[in-house]
Amino acid sequence: MPIDTRHPREIRADIRRGKLAGITAGLGQNFVQANLAVLPRDWAYDFLVFCQRNPRPCPLLEVTDVGSAEPVGVAPGADLRTDIPKYRIYKDGALADEVTDATPYWRDDLVAFLLGCSFTFEWALLEAGIRLWHVEQGRNVAMWRTSIACRPAGRLHGPMVVSMRPIAAAELSKAVTASARFPGAHGAPVHVGDPAAIGIADLARPDWGDPQEFRPGDVPVFWACGVTPQAVALASKPPFMLTHSPGHMFITDLPNSALAAI
Amino acid sequence: MPIDTRHPREIRADIRRGKLAGITAGLGQNFVQANLAVLPRDWAYDFLVFCQRNPRPCPLLEVTDVGSAEPVGVAPGADLRTDIPKYRIYKDGALADEVTDATPYWRDDLVAFLLGCSFTFEWALLEAGIRLWHVEQGRNVAMWRTSIACRPAGRLHGPMVVSMRPIAAAELSKAVTASARFPGAHGAPVHVGDPAAIGIADLARPDWGDPQEFRPGDVPVFWACGVTPQAVALASKPPFMLTHSPGHMFITDLPNSALAAI
Repeated sequence: MPIDTRHPREIRADIRRGKLAGITAGLGQNFVQANLAVLPRDWAYDFLVFCQRNPRPCPLLEVTDVGSAEPVGVAPGADLRTDIPKYRIYKDGALADEVTDATPYWRDDLVAFLLGCSFTFEWALLEAGIRLWHVEQGRNVAMWRTSIACRPAGRLHGPMVVSMRPIAAAELSKAVTASARFPGAHGAPVHVGDPAAIGIADLARPDWGDPQEFRPGDVPVFWACGVTPQAVALASKPPFMLTHSPGHMFITDLPNSALAAI
Repeated sequence: MPIDTRHPREIRADIRRGKLAGITAGLGQNFVQANLAVLPRDWAYDFLVFCQRNPRPCPLLEVTDVGSAEPVGVAPGADLRTDIPKYRIYKDGALADEVTDATPYWRDDLVAFLLGCSFTFEWALLEAGIRLWHVEQGRNVAMWRTSIACRPAGRLHGPMVVSMRPIAAAELSKAVTASARFPGAHGAPVHVGDPAAIGIADLARPDWGDPQEFRPGDVPVFWACGVTPQAVALASKPPFMLTHSPGHMFITDLPNSALAAI
């Protein structure tokens, strides 16, 4: 994976100018990347309560002031309408558009939410010496809807989405502790082992992403996934919702280590 | 300190019947106790964003549905109007009443917030073998308003309040790591050492609570304090606010260990 070691500020400037248009994996090495969800103020309260009730899939890093596209807490000076390579626009729960500049869709009643992303805990796993097959192969991680119900909040409800990584049994303990230190990036696994126990029928057929390859002795390990809030919000069909496009994340000024609980 | 080892459900039933009317220290050993703040729905959005932006002083454990007094997530079946020994009612930022049953003040537009409390990390410190002077002496911890500004949210703004415990220099590292594991109960200290650096003029004169006694070699260690959200909300003068009375906490069904990040 090519690594861009410049400060996120410079990388975001390139994205804003259209010079960087692809996925953000490998950009802003060691800086926190985040999922974006933008909702009208009318829906923002339900979304806040939903995140509070479901912190594993929805670790909130930032909430902008109503109408503001600047994430003051994690990237002062950034503009969430232009500093992400690609956006998705949903209307009434259906994909309506995909754009590289969300400015034309911005409104004074919008609230932007940034949520922690698996890149942070994957960095922690790699630092701990754990091999990640999909990173080595440049593939997307595998994700499933599960039978684990999220706690509903107002109009928002739905199942938890998880991502799965094959981990060598000897490394399980290290994988749990390394990721647990980052509650702001999904934290410890929500399940280890038998996929059927959380409603996953076939490890070879993920709902999103690529099937993962198991080496002898690997165990499937499941983490809460940042796709959950999008899946839940879309199932609830808000009239308007703006998100990043999958893999095209927002790069914050926070070093990954800033999210460590200990 | 007398210890009541019954399940919180039974202790709350005694509180509801008026059989237990004092402070809750020592009740529900090893179970999470929580700060209560109740605000009208109109103010609840600002309070949620404030907690997200200031997780150290305001670690949110539970938000009830609008109009509901049942904290389904942390104590199903409990009633936040009756299951706390003593309540304070504030109107326009001024103390208006102190009652043992908040039912007459309940309204359909109210939202109840439960916030983590220092009892949880003090338990972690004690388990780690760290002596706490105020616990040994049955005194209240010392608290101060600081020069650390909270990040404002909507109509809510104000300084962080901290509590201070004298810790033996040799135990500092253990005090930091033991409390850091509990981000839901204020987490790691926000400051260690020189009180002037965070705007505290005189360690002998706390803004709330009792002055603490230092033994030779003790260092002052400051943790974000659950008084912050009350102080901030009151400075912002919401028309109505209901809280627990200091020391009279809500006892949840969560064991303290459930709040550990790792």
